[in-house]
Amino acid sequence: MNSPPNLTDPLVLFMPSGKRGRFPKGTPILDAARELGVYVESVCGGRATCGRCQIEVQEGQFAKHKIVSSLDNISVMGGRERRYVDKRGLADGRRLSCSATIEGDLVVDVPQDTVINAQVVRKSPIERTIERNPAVQLCYVEVDEPDMHKPLGDLDRLKAVLERDWGWEDLLVSQHIIPTVQATLRKGNWGVTAAIHQDLDSSRPTIIALWPGLHNEAYGIACDIGSTTIAMHLVSLLSGRIAASSGTSNPQIRFGEDLMSRVSYVMMNPDGRVAMTKAVRGAVNALVEKVCREGGVDQDNVLDAVFVGNPIMHHLFLGIDPTELGQAPFALAVSGAVHSWGSELGLAINFGARVYVLPCIAGHVGADAAGAVLSEQPHHQERMMLMVDVGTNAEIVLGNSQRVVAASSPTGPAFEGAEITSGQRAAPGAIERVRIDKDTLEPRFTIIGSELWSDDEGFEADAARLGVTGVCGSAIIEVVAEMYLAGIMSEDGVIDGALAARNPRIVADGRTWSYVLHQGTQKILITQTDVRAVQLAKAALYAGIRLLMEKLGIDHVDTIRFAGAFGSFIDPKYAMVLGLIPDCELAEVKAVGNAAGTGALMALLNRDYRREIEEVVRRIEKIETALEPRFQAHFIHAMALPNKVDPFPKLAAQVALPPRAQSSPGGEPGQAAPRRRSREERTARRART
Amino acid sequence: MNSPPNLTDPLVLFMPSGKRGRFPKGTPILDAARELGVYVESVCGGRATCGRCQIEVQEGQFAKHKIVSSLDNISVMGGRERRYVDKRGLADGRRLSCSATIEGDLVVDVPQDTVINAQVVRKSPIERTIERNPAVQLCYVEVDEPDMHKPLGDLDRLKAVLERDWGWEDLLVSQHIIPTVQATLRKGNWGVTAAIHQDLDSSRPTIIALWPGLHNEAYGIACDIGSTTIAMHLVSLLSGRIAASSGTSNPQIRFGEDLMSRVSYVMMNPDGRVAMTKAVRGAVNALVEKVCREGGVDQDNVLDAVFVGNPIMHHLFLGIDPTELGQAPFALAVSGAVHSWGSELGLAINFGARVYVLPCIAGHVGADAAGAVLSEQPHHQERMMLMVDVGTNAEIVLGNSQRVVAASSPTGPAFEGAEITSGQRAAPGAIERVRIDKDTLEPRFTIIGSELWSDDEGFEADAARLGVTGVCGSAIIEVVAEMYLAGIMSEDGVIDGALAARNPRIVADGRTWSYVLHQGTQKILITQTDVRAVQLAKAALYAGIRLLMEKLGIDHVDTIRFAGAFGSFIDPKYAMVLGLIPDCELAEVKAVGNAAGTGALMALLNRDYRREIEEVVRRIEKIETALEPRFQAHFIHAMALPNKVDPFPKLAAQVALPPRAQSSPGGEPGQAAPRRRSREERTARRART
Repeated sequence: MNSPPNLTDPLVLFMPSGKRGRFPKGTPILDAARELGVYVESVCGGRATCGRCQIEVQEGQFAKHKIVSSLDNISVMGGRERRYVDKRGLADGRRLSCSATIEGDLVVDVPQDTVINAQVVRKSPIERTIERNPAVQLCYVEVDEPDMHKPLGDLDRLKAVLERDWGWEDLLVSQHIIPTVQATLRKGNWGVTAAIHQDLDSSRPTIIALWPGLHNEAYGIACDIGSTTIAMHLVSLLSGRIAASSGTSNPQIRFGEDLMSRVSYVMMNPDGRVAMTKAVRGAVNALVEKVCREGGVDQDNVLDAVFVGNPIMHHLFLGIDPTELGQAPFALAVSGAVHSWGSELGLAINFGARVYVLPCIAGHVGADAAGAVLSEQPHHQERMMLMVDVGTNAEIVLGNSQRVVAASSPTGPAFEGAEITSGQRAAPGAIERVRIDKDTLEPRFTIIGSELWSDDEGFEADAARLGVTGVCGSAIIEVVAEMYLAGIMSEDGVIDGALAARNPRIVADGRTWSYVLHQGTQKILITQTDVRAVQLAKAALYAGIRLLMEKLGIDHVDTIRFAGAFGSFIDPKYAMVLGLIPDCELAEVKAVGNAAGTGALMALLNRDYRREIEEVVRRIEKIETALEPRFQAHFIHAMALPNKVDPFPKLAAQVALPPRAQSSPGGEPGQAAPRRRSREERTARRART
Repeated sequence: MNSPPNLTDPLVLFMPSGKRGRFPKGTPILDAARELGVYVESVCGGRATCGRCQIEVQEGQFAKHKIVSSLDNISVMGGRERRYVDKRGLADGRRLSCSATIEGDLVVDVPQDTVINAQVVRKSPIERTIERNPAVQLCYVEVDEPDMHKPLGDLDRLKAVLERDWGWEDLLVSQHIIPTVQATLRKGNWGVTAAIHQDLDSSRPTIIALWPGLHNEAYGIACDIGSTTIAMHLVSLLSGRIAASSGTSNPQIRFGEDLMSRVSYVMMNPDGRVAMTKAVRGAVNALVEKVCREGGVDQDNVLDAVFVGNPIMHHLFLGIDPTELGQAPFALAVSGAVHSWGSELGLAINFGARVYVLPCIAGHVGADAAGAVLSEQPHHQERMMLMVDVGTNAEIVLGNSQRVVAASSPTGPAFEGAEITSGQRAAPGAIERVRIDKDTLEPRFTIIGSELWSDDEGFEADAARLGVTGVCGSAIIEVVAEMYLAGIMSEDGVIDGALAARNPRIVADGRTWSYVLHQGTQKILITQTDVRAVQLAKAALYAGIRLLMEKLGIDHVDTIRFAGAFGSFIDPKYAMVLGLIPDCELAEVKAVGNAAGTGALMALLNRDYRREIEEVVRRIEKIETALEPRFQAHFIHAMALPNKVDPFPKLAAQVALPPRAQSSPGGEPGQAAPRRRSREERTARRART
């Protein structure tokens, strides 16, 4: 096969990879695929029993490739393949590539089970196909029986046949398998299936599991451990099919809502770290059980697992004390990718299962951000991409194929509804969308759990059923932006008390003014303090973004990705009116949901993605916003809506923005300046100490 | 340094390796040694703090090497080295090679702490120097402090400096270290010592332990798990010094004296395997504690461990059910070397410590035999070496640099004193040496615990104190051989009843005769049945040896090694008179004691020996005596003393052997033949089912 191809040999083209080559008649299609580096699964090693190596012949003229592909050019189904079909069946047009041979020119389709990026947290699924090259492979072999004349051990003969039939050299063996080898071989009547793990090409492949007979199931989990939510995909490593996706709340919430209060808990309680590690691993295990139940998969068939998470969750999950992350210089215990074992982490999956944890980018930009980078691939784009994950700490990644920079910014909890008078988490009854009439200054809104706007007929009934209980994060952004667009407040965020004369919803609150959004059993109002909290949060995020843009010497971005749950609910238009993100075509602002989880899934299904993200993370330049003298200036400019100095021409082309003030108004801003600074400092302190 | 050496540069010769090279003036001697591949230890990495890199300059004219070596040609002691000497002292003539530089031609001696092959079981120590190249190395480094601008994790920066200062690339990290890295780095004020394990050159080196500051102690254990005795050396991996050696009885004896009864125990008892694994690991741990206490070594400083043992002990120690070893085809679960972790096997040593288990040769020729081969090195000799380890199963290895063959032979327990009327284990009061006067047929003997012969003055007192309780293995061989030499029995092993007239010690016992060796509180006699048991045992061993000689096409061996405890007590002359071993110069028959333990020690101190024994074991041809049709013929000839057909010219030159019988005497042998066969079959059955 390594001799130069004979030009009279049939030409075979594999789709969708497009790889092609000439092979002598009679060559099994699987062998041709292997030789060209086309990934076609096979567990049984060409015995026509596992059915994993299915392909489809595309018939017709492929002028571009100068191929006329025909079913006549593939061998007639023979005995072994026929026996498989009689026993298990085969979809129309499918053939087993281990048995079907090349008899003429062919275009061969390798069917890809489409990976659905099923969003766990109320998100529309995105379709995406991930080319598979998993770190775990199943290999069925038939081992020689013991022979007194050649007294190689049972395990040694197993290794020898795995080398002979599958090319695995220098195999290591997971310790727990050694005592079981003899019984497994005899139970399988010398036919066994070994699960081989090899991640780095430079690492030695390892037998991590062994079953008697043909074992045709191998699954993996991809998990994003977020501060509030843990999300998990269960996927077949043999087909790429997602068997189940689910999420659960992180039980560590009981140790503190935000990350820094959890670090404090560890610092204050001698057994705090142990308790929190136990809690998160317990939740992960409960989720493993859930997705396996939903997917009808035996937990023992889960052989590989990939995890992402923010640095503190990453550390706690791995059993590392996160205290150092709570204070400058925010030193990670480990930033590189971590290779571990499910048994080391107490995971309720196969005892030999491996674990891969993506690298962290910096002390506040974790493996979850790395997962999002892997998913959105800024490093493969010519266009400049901004990725933002808004949370208590916002993670910001900016770049393209030339250069990528990253930072975190202490936005504080305002966007999550904390420190807002009527703020609450997203839950039924929470106000979700807000519009304010520019003329009447009257609001209308929707609540979670109802399709209706508050001025629609029938809304009263829904409101009575669900209650109108507060404003969630997305509504906070919308109401503040709409108050600005309606002229209820100035670009500096000052609610205009003079408007109280026009609409009684503008009410005095000491020496400042508030806006009454709803008056039901509960009065829901937006106070001057609420507006300030939103300004501080958005200014911190924007200042971080602006700093990164400055590092790259750019004045605009081409495309924006909102990662994370929060980004999926906010309207890009309002985020931009608020000046949360820089000016950009609105159509180029996209919510990508749990991109971190998608990145984990990619790394699970294809180990090449692990090398890719490790290399990208090494290249990403980390900016520590707290150390940048320019941060403060950007922050102050970003207190204005949308910004004191930065233009928003693309936004202005689509949204009627109020005219900019010509100069700083007196009084309030002058008074606000020191107050702002101290608030910012408090935010930073809260986030980092 | 990689440029061609300048012929005007000083010439440096390292002893004892004899490696030499030219180096520019000012080159530290340690660097020169490294470049030439001379192993000089260093933990601190050239900071003149660990004191491990000591060398000595040899002064004088070395005409053969054309070097005039002088203390003037080494740099004057400088500041760092001076500070070390002031603090820790340095033996006269010693220098630190990391600090002392080359200033002219030198002959440098790298002092080797002589490894004493301290025999555990009452054996005279053999001196031997083992060149060191251990699998574990200590490396002190000073890690960069965390930097917000370059947020590499603490562990990642540790790995980076281990690569920069010590050349370790692609380091893996033992899982248990990850959560401790940050505290260790801070405790050591960023100076830490890492223990790096690398065994195979193709495997990735791994950080297995980490200490704050300079940690200057690393030990290993070499352990031979025998059926009756477990023996252990504790040795410094940094100097090769043996800190302690000790032994303990194998507690598995309570599950059955011989190996096969232990296999039966496992087969009959559901938890038998678990109980026996627990027992042997518990005994190993007790021995670890003992040698560490004796050597004044913290168990946590034991970082590597090498084990040998017969196949059944090997399996039970590793937690493998040995049932398959109890029946044809005697399949080992694993025959290749096993790499494991102390924590996996529950060993009371450093949690990250590694374990290496030598390969097994065959189902009845274990890792202990491999250790003995490594120790005695038949594969490096031109002369033909026979190695024998006598036990219930005798292991036989025969060969030279051309070819090595191995087999086991079911000798049964006779040599251990079992199935012998007055047999007992070696213990005070047991008869140890025996001589019989050819004229009077009167015996004299010694007992364990006394220096005196039974006809010496004062023996009565010793006998009264110790008792005369039975005959141990070595005495059984001597008394049977002496009875033959004195003419009390024929070459066919028949005790001559006619001699009862000459000496009343020959007494009737039914239709056969016995010889009364001692008449005290206990009557100690050698019966015809005892003689038959010895004949059967020695015939089985000799037949195995003869079979291997036949395989190699040789009619004599050049040198013989008795390994194991038994071999150390028997007199080669009597072993040869008995025909236990083939004819050979008596001076060439040597007891080597616990050669298996010595082999383990070699593999512990130098990982090259691991590769050597793995390669040799692959090459060794295994002969299954039970399957060889010629075994039976050799066995029958070997029933005679010393042998029915094989000549013993070298023995005859030194010992007056009785004249050979011209033909088989009638009666007894004819009757004995079927009885012999059935006995042999029973022995084989006992050993293998």
